Amino acid sequence: MNRQIAMILNEAPYGTLALCEGAKPYNVVLNFVLTDGVLYFHGSPTGRKMHILSQNPFASFSVVVPYALIPSYFSSDTGLACPATHFFESVLIEGEVVVVTEPHEKQYALSALMAKLQPEGGYKALEDEVYKKVIAKTAVFKLIPHHSSVKSKLGQKLPKERFEMIIENLQQRADPLDLKTVEKMREARHDVGI
Amino acid sequence: MNRQIAMILNEAPYGTLALCEGAKPYNVVLNFVLTDGVLYFHGSPTGRKMHILSQNPFASFSVVVPYALIPSYFSSDTGLACPATHFFESVLIEGEVVVVTEPHEKQYALSALMAKLQPEGGYKALEDEVYKKVIAKTAVFKLIPHHSSVKSKLGQKLPKERFEMIIENLQQRADPLDLKTVEKMREARHDVGI
Repeated sequence: MNRQIAMILNEAPYGTLALCEGAKPYNVVLNFVLTDGVLYFHGSPTGRKMHILSQNPFASFSVVVPYALIPSYFSSDTGLACPATHFFESVLIEGEVVVVTEPHEKQYALSALMAKLQPEGGYKALEDEVYKKVIAKTAVFKLIPHHSSVKSKLGQKLPKERFEMIIENLQQRADPLDLKTVEKMREARHDVGI
Repeated sequence: MNRQIAMILNEAPYGTLALCEGAKPYNVVLNFVLTDGVLYFHGSPTGRKMHILSQNPFASFSVVVPYALIPSYFSSDTGLACPATHFFESVLIEGEVVVVTEPHEKQYALSALMAKLQPEGGYKALEDEVYKKVIAKTAVFKLIPHHSSVKSKLGQKLPKERFEMIIENLQQRADPLDLKTVEKMREARHDVGI
């Protein structure tokens, strides 16, 4: 897993886990944490997700970082609809899920999840005896990545003129997301060496 | 499909489509539009998504509207980590995908997509002859829902005291997303009749 993928996963609070129930896909929104090269999740031990996982451990997890919607006229004077697009970055992790049953690993996973989502602290450490029963009743599972990829759709390969036209238009519209998009566009352009 | 689901789908610019490639799930981020009870998508006619769809038309599409992260101390004075949560609404559409080949339906779908994502206009109508070739080269497919559901995680069933404690804390933290979350929490509470 490369650094860019790890950064996106560390910043995103949630993603979408896809599973296959026979030939039928099912997806579910989950908070998660990346640590030691695996993704940890938690949830209820009953229900559809755990049922499917008991039959088929293959999973695909996707995280999206949405950027600005780009109207067609932001990059073209032709009056055509085609240049309209939506900028985003996304990560796809494909692999296998293992249900975690060992109490210390469950505790470790839940600690990592709390540290990610509530970095300011303000809670008793998960090692505390008080959590023993609730940890036993919480399902924890990890996705072991077999393959990970990132897709970065930020106009980074557009001709210079169109690229700069989009930046100018975003700077003029100036929503907070537009300004964040401009920053990301420049980074992505730099990364592809243009 | 109920009104709440349609509202969420009409406001969300993108979602995650899950497919099954044999026993292995695959998911992909896509813009979409809901019209006439189906969801239309477009993309490249080649590539993994269209290849999988040619083998297995079952699909599951998920849309997330994220709300605030709720630290454990926002709803409890116990010092326990357990009340930490993430509020969100999500929609899951399960059904079957049909690849659209009829040129007028493709045009109709792309028009609906543009009307959703660029409501201010500023482009030649998709009926224009100029688009004929590009429409022929664009893959369009529709998801016909067999089942749709919504999940609303906004603390709406919490005891009054904890519910109000979260609202107070969100109003104090006062990020734009926090204030939007407060509004949604009250709506959701009203909907469950508390």
